[in-house]
Amino acid sequence: MSDNQLANKSQAWSALFSEPMSDLVKRYTASVGFDQRLWRADIAGSLAHAEMLAAQGILSAEDHATIQRGLGEIAAEIEAGRFDWKLDLEDVHLNIEARLTERVGIAGKRLHTGRSRNDQVATDVRLWLRGEIDEISGLLAALQRVLVDKAGEHAGVILPGFTHLQVAQPVSFGHHLLAYVEMFARDSERLADARKRVNRLPLGAAALAGTSYPLDRERVARTLGMEACSQNSLDAVSDRDFAIEFSAAATLVMLHISRLSEELILWMSQNFGFIALPDAFCTGSSIMPQKKNPDVPELARGKTGRVVGHLVGLVTLMKGQPLAYNKDNQEDKEPLFDTVDTLKDTLRIFADMLAGLSVKPEAMRAATLKGHATATDLADYLVKKGLPFRDAHEVVAHAVKTATQQGVDLAALTLDQLKTFDARIEADVFDVLSLEGSLNARNVLGGTAPAQVRAQVARHRARLG
Amino acid sequence: MSDNQLANKSQAWSALFSEPMSDLVKRYTASVGFDQRLWRADIAGSLAHAEMLAAQGILSAEDHATIQRGLGEIAAEIEAGRFDWKLDLEDVHLNIEARLTERVGIAGKRLHTGRSRNDQVATDVRLWLRGEIDEISGLLAALQRVLVDKAGEHAGVILPGFTHLQVAQPVSFGHHLLAYVEMFARDSERLADARKRVNRLPLGAAALAGTSYPLDRERVARTLGMEACSQNSLDAVSDRDFAIEFSAAATLVMLHISRLSEELILWMSQNFGFIALPDAFCTGSSIMPQKKNPDVPELARGKTGRVVGHLVGLVTLMKGQPLAYNKDNQEDKEPLFDTVDTLKDTLRIFADMLAGLSVKPEAMRAATLKGHATATDLADYLVKKGLPFRDAHEVVAHAVKTATQQGVDLAALTLDQLKTFDARIEADVFDVLSLEGSLNARNVLGGTAPAQVRAQVARHRARLG
Amino acid sequence: MSDNQLANKSQAWSALFSEPMSDLVKRYTASVGFDQRLWRADIAGSLAHAEMLAAQGILSAEDHATIQRGLGEIAAEIEAGRFDWKLDLEDVHLNIEARLTERVGIAGKRLHTGRSRNDQVATDVRLWLRGEIDEISGLLAALQRVLVDKAGEHAGVILPGFTHLQVAQPVSFGHHLLAYVEMFARDSERLADARKRVNRLPLGAAALAGTSYPLDRERVARTLGMEACSQNSLDAVSDRDFAIEFSAAATLVMLHISRLSEELILWMSQNFGFIALPDAFCTGSSIMPQKKNPDVPELARGKTGRVVGHLVGLVTLMKGQPLAYNKDNQEDKEPLFDTVDTLKDTLRIFADMLAGLSVKPEAMRAATLKGHATATDLADYLVKKGLPFRDAHEVVAHAVKTATQQGVDLAALTLDQLKTFDARIEADVFDVLSLEGSLNARNVLGGTAPAQVRAQVARHRARLG
Amino acid sequence: MSDNQLANKSQAWSALFSEPMSDLVKRYTASVGFDQRLWRADIAGSLAHAEMLAAQGILSAEDHATIQRGLGEIAAEIEAGRFDWKLDLEDVHLNIEARLTERVGIAGKRLHTGRSRNDQVATDVRLWLRGEIDEISGLLAALQRVLVDKAGEHAGVILPGFTHLQVAQPVSFGHHLLAYVEMFARDSERLADARKRVNRLPLGAAALAGTSYPLDRERVARTLGMEACSQNSLDAVSDRDFAIEFSAAATLVMLHISRLSEELILWMSQNFGFIALPDAFCTGSSIMPQKKNPDVPELARGKTGRVVGHLVGLVTLMKGQPLAYNKDNQEDKEPLFDTVDTLKDTLRIFADMLAGLSVKPEAMRAATLKGHATATDLADYLVKKGLPFRDAHEVVAHAVKTATQQGVDLAALTLDQLKTFDARIEADVFDVLSLEGSLNARNVLGGTAPAQVRAQVARHRARLG
Repeated sequence: MSDNQLANKSQAWSALFSEPMSDLVKRYTASVGFDQRLWRADIAGSLAHAEMLAAQGILSAEDHATIQRGLGEIAAEIEAGRFDWKLDLEDVHLNIEARLTERVGIAGKRLHTGRSRNDQVATDVRLWLRGEIDEISGLLAALQRVLVDKAGEHAGVILPGFTHLQVAQPVSFGHHLLAYVEMFARDSERLADARKRVNRLPLGAAALAGTSYPLDRERVARTLGMEACSQNSLDAVSDRDFAIEFSAAATLVMLHISRLSEELILWMSQNFGFIALPDAFCTGSSIMPQKKNPDVPELARGKTGRVVGHLVGLVTLMKGQPLAYNKDNQEDKEPLFDTVDTLKDTLRIFADMLAGLSVKPEAMRAATLKGHATATDLADYLVKKGLPFRDAHEVVAHAVKTATQQGVDLAALTLDQLKTFDARIEADVFDVLSLEGSLNARNVLGGTAPAQVRAQVARHRARLG
Repeated sequence: MSDNQLANKSQAWSALFSEPMSDLVKRYTASVGFDQRLWRADIAGSLAHAEMLAAQGILSAEDHATIQRGLGEIAAEIEAGRFDWKLDLEDVHLNIEARLTERVGIAGKRLHTGRSRNDQVATDVRLWLRGEIDEISGLLAALQRVLVDKAGEHAGVILPGFTHLQVAQPVSFGHHLLAYVEMFARDSERLADARKRVNRLPLGAAALAGTSYPLDRERVARTLGMEACSQNSLDAVSDRDFAIEFSAAATLVMLHISRLSEELILWMSQNFGFIALPDAFCTGSSIMPQKKNPDVPELARGKTGRVVGHLVGLVTLMKGQPLAYNKDNQEDKEPLFDTVDTLKDTLRIFADMLAGLSVKPEAMRAATLKGHATATDLADYLVKKGLPFRDAHEVVAHAVKTATQQGVDLAALTLDQLKTFDARIEADVFDVLSLEGSLNARNVLGGTAPAQVRAQVARHRARLG
Repeated sequence: MSDNQLANKSQAWSALFSEPMSDLVKRYTASVGFDQRLWRADIAGSLAHAEMLAAQGILSAEDHATIQRGLGEIAAEIEAGRFDWKLDLEDVHLNIEARLTERVGIAGKRLHTGRSRNDQVATDVRLWLRGEIDEISGLLAALQRVLVDKAGEHAGVILPGFTHLQVAQPVSFGHHLLAYVEMFARDSERLADARKRVNRLPLGAAALAGTSYPLDRERVARTLGMEACSQNSLDAVSDRDFAIEFSAAATLVMLHISRLSEELILWMSQNFGFIALPDAFCTGSSIMPQKKNPDVPELARGKTGRVVGHLVGLVTLMKGQPLAYNKDNQEDKEPLFDTVDTLKDTLRIFADMLAGLSVKPEAMRAATLKGHATATDLADYLVKKGLPFRDAHEVVAHAVKTATQQGVDLAALTLDQLKTFDARIEADVFDVLSLEGSLNARNVLGGTAPAQVRAQVARHRARLG
Repeated sequence: MSDNQLANKSQAWSALFSEPMSDLVKRYTASVGFDQRLWRADIAGSLAHAEMLAAQGILSAEDHATIQRGLGEIAAEIEAGRFDWKLDLEDVHLNIEARLTERVGIAGKRLHTGRSRNDQVATDVRLWLRGEIDEISGLLAALQRVLVDKAGEHAGVILPGFTHLQVAQPVSFGHHLLAYVEMFARDSERLADARKRVNRLPLGAAALAGTSYPLDRERVARTLGMEACSQNSLDAVSDRDFAIEFSAAATLVMLHISRLSEELILWMSQNFGFIALPDAFCTGSSIMPQKKNPDVPELARGKTGRVVGHLVGLVTLMKGQPLAYNKDNQEDKEPLFDTVDTLKDTLRIFADMLAGLSVKPEAMRAATLKGHATATDLADYLVKKGLPFRDAHEVVAHAVKTATQQGVDLAALTLDQLKTFDARIEADVFDVLSLEGSLNARNVLGGTAPAQVRAQVARHRARLG
């Protein structure tokens, strides 16, 4: 048998097959077109495996050295774009192993001792995803920093706080931005939790049952920086929980992006006119010469669909699969890869775009004055004068009705007019009816008072380093 | 202004923009990487548009001829792989239009008269999808033909019909295969219904409001073989129902494939051993030398997730979008393209694979004899002797209990034993207790009797041509 | 054996079971809590089955009459709320059959001849869903009528047409409403297509293989008004395509509702102020006395999630199920029921709410003047003067830039100012720069010109009867 | 104004509304039909809020005592089923508050000081969900204990380990069960992580902006056992991440249940015959007297769809919502409630069912002998004799081919036959070719050797207490 037995994948499978694969089947079943991005993890895993095999005396020191050298050369080839990926060799693992054998001969054939592609691919995906989670966490932190800076800058800028998209109460624009910081901070927490479950070592589970070679799995885990070994070989090769958990966390990131996008689009619409996005993040129209469109937030909002679609795809994939490894699982990669790419691009572009955000405080203030935004303050004022809250609420409703009929904001009614609704109202009422008065009054932990906003900015800065 | 104004997309947008796009934004917002596959539809749509503009006197005959020639040359360039797709030109439309202007000058600039990219892209996707639906319908028919042929071949082969994966009643293997023919036939119907709603012309809606040029939209529709013009310009540019309806139909195709795959995998498992798939559609193991794995049906089962994920992605995309066109909609293409590719590959490979299916009638028969499959026949026998069905059911349950305790199939009890459960049982009972007797008895329309199966095979053959 | 054998469900199953169900298992597996809403369909199906059994001589005329009478009495009991639904009897079918036997004795036991709960439940769900589709189609038509009436009323009212939520071109409010009429009209078409595949008869498939009784399935289909018999018994009992197809169509209805809701919410927000919803469809706040919130469209937008969730649930349910009937399928009902209820309530409430919509034309007009909405008209004007479209686009962009810098709408520039951008501009330019001029110009089929809108209103009125 | 002002909800909203709600709108917008299950959390939250108001001097000691007494009486009324839930009062919050005011008068009206229904409902759902997570964690532990016990019992029982549902290698049945213990243990970890993010206090955010009352939010958090206060009021009232994170974790639980169910159904099918489920968890057939169907695992597999559907529903709900609270969010409850109910019932029933599982070791062993399950052991044997793994794999493939042609298992070949494939094979080969030899050889951490299984059982017992 030639050293080159792995020149195509059916040779890897033995003499048992009577007919070769058709090209359509090769293309349908091969993963090398997309899983080649795992090459760094694949080589790192092989190096750790070989090191352990040598330490356990399963591989000779000479074979180990040969394998190390060979894998190093292959890494250089791939890095340089000189590696010839072959569809016939199905996946990243066989491509690299075949090339190793081609380069270093019989020692290469010994590398696969005590492992299988089932535990190998699970290890590769986990190593790769761990790195991506770290990168995404960094991007989330960078985006938070931009938002925190903008929030500090605009702690005193007032815009209408909406509920039901109706003017509710005045809020600080800085406070509004910090709401998104809370969301992205939770996303980071969630990814850190998911990372613990990603960072476990399946290698050593072999095909499904473990192996008869005296492997030292803890050693491999240490070498690869993994927190633990998986404790059950059947679970190790068939588990894709970590991919689904990551996808669910990614979906939440994109939901937050979709909400922020929705607001950016609204705020940039002429009827709001609260902000402008930098030109570099907008596009024009091929037909309407006046257009400047917020393409980036629109696309990002749309890409939420892509990420939740991948989550659903992965869940559907795993539903009802018997143990242990089934070929279905090969379908875990493309959704995962695309989810990671989407997140990284989106977080990066949002940090850039928001750094260039222009804020229009006058438009925000004008809009706040359209909806009797301080009505609740008047009710609270009456409560402090002794009315039960529910009764104060009723009194103010009548005042609002009158103001609306007169086409003015509640704050524009005269003291005499206000007194007709409740005699306890006095001149100091105008302190609470002003936008600033309302804002400053909400000085409770987590409230919108600029003092609170500045305290939160400081807390986030300390947290984000 | 130079003829080459479209050399990059921000030039298409006018003088309004003060800063150029960053590379990240270009990459994030560009679609030419994936929408170039629409080029044939884009050119066909432009040719029909130009022809109408000329007929309406909006375009001179000379300009029309020039545009025709230019687009023909561009088609040849693309076909030959010599077309230089530019990221700077964002999408397939601007790439082709810019190249046209580059080749033919000012006439090229006149092509965009009375249309916008909003109605252009909607037209392109519809034209493209119509063609793909026709191709998929052909593949569904081909797969049905393979199944019908196999069904005809195996009309008399008996396997256990399961409910709850418990042996229920004997059924014909041909009958079992025809259940899938019914499913794929429904898929074809559904695609034909969806096609009607795909095959409508948005062109003429322009950006969103229609156009002030005296277009003849019905003429364009006729040229392109479309059944109708969309009747509302806002709807025309913002509607993606047709993509979702197609994806839902595609999801059902894949659900059927997933069910068939599940059965092929079960049947090929050693504990069933009902069939063998051709070697060319199986793969081996890198560690276990004895393995022959049904990779193709497993992957296909997994790919169900991909297609349903795309459906969910599209639904999420459209949820809550205000009219009319928003950039989110650009995200409709990749899921649609991947859905089409997945369907075509899967249907093609299943037709090939099933044509080579080996059937093992003895294993099927042996399995049928494991579960008292003719118990219902005994109950029906007793009903014909005058018992109400519910009482007959009870009598047979007792007989089954006895047979189970003796470790034999119900059909193996002696007449004397059977008579102890009901005195009306006589020697003719063995006609109904045999597998063939049971099978032949179910000679109702749609039933499993081989005579019915053969009639259905004939009907399907006539239908499929 | 007593007539009362069906007093609990394990008695329906025979002597084979050695221990009774625990209460938890009963509750977990029983469906009578929700499937009792199928009672009308169940009785209609039983009556048709009995009529055919009698016609075929399988049931005596006397038994048939007895069953008819018994089922009539049971229908009256249920209608009057006097029927005692029993969890022990698992589902609607056994509950009704047991009660029948209790009332009429042995004839009741004969009703189940030649059928099984597998084909019975499939028949019931189809009959029920057919009726609901008809009701939903009626509600869709009613909603369309309201929209068409409003469109007719407001054909000449101008609001800003948006793309990317940026002011694009003036459009008629009536035209905007008709975009939704197109969507709901497509929904009706789609439901009509789905109905064809719902309205097929599984009865006669029995448990999975057909039956040995000489049933006349075509007769039952005719009695029940069904278009065809299912042609394969295995498919008949295991198919849930029709539920998924309906759910996908329902998802599209809700997507349209979500888009309309988004717009209603936007339009009612103070920064738009385009409309007011009737008070009866709004709610207030327990804390903010000035609030009037568009709760109904918000909830409807949220309910989109519910319906798409059910679609995904059904798809997940069916993925990878082997033939024929599995208990998983019982889970088809609750999502289907809730989808139908959600659709019916939502369509009804939208028709009522929109009938009371108040429109504020001044606010709409004012908003249209904020975004150079007639810039495209100026470009088209220049094209008619001889410029290629791409060059005209560029000229107008410069004019828009100047207008923006001066803080005015493009239409407010003087002729002298306009001439500096292109000398061909003359006094007639103001015809195209006015909102009405722009609107009337778009007089192409499906365009926004009021003349087109009125023609579409007439077409829809004719169509909707 | 009467003390009874809250007798219906529009009275809670003030004088601003000119027309009453129609019954359809009331029904459409009311949540009391389903959110009444939050009553315990609602009262606990109100008690903590009142206690803090009193401590801060916002509420008099007398009013506080009155409120405490009143809420205690209401809790007793609800517990006893004597509380009259009113649709007119919309939700659980207004129902309880109105009843409080009815019972205790003006003090009741003071309870709502400094809070809104927006922060109140967010607090209630979090408190309720925290309790449910604790209960589910307990049920997960109980299920794990049952599996661990069964695994300990059957550590030495051999069944075929499958990959691709093809016989791969012998595995311990105990080992197989422990794979599920790993999955459920991960589910518990994930729920514990989610719980941290559930257990944060929104109360004090009021409607959206915080409140002007000097609340001590940290005090309320301590009283309610919450880990932290939410730090941004806008986020506090609009965040539903915790519901989505919980639903994603629940989806993974159900995926694991679906995989276990699939295997139980397979194993109980006559062609496997590996296990029997207790009769109390099976059902029979209304037509086939011999049937005993694994209804519980089938239904559980089906219910996966329900839970993933709810996850998708929640994600769709939140996509693109602008801040802060929108009525859409009311739709978060039903999916969450149904997910919790489904999980609790399913986990409980699985623990009961699996405790009664019967195992059939002979059938498992017989099945293991059908697929050359020890072929990998022969390859490993040859590697230890000096062959590179890839060459050993090839040798064994030839031996398997011969065994298959002779219709015997690889282990049944004679030494002479084996020697023809490689001369290095000697008599000791039969140690590794036996099932027990193969099993015991896989004595690596996480491997299937009974010694490993027993060690894992001990570890899990220590962990689960």
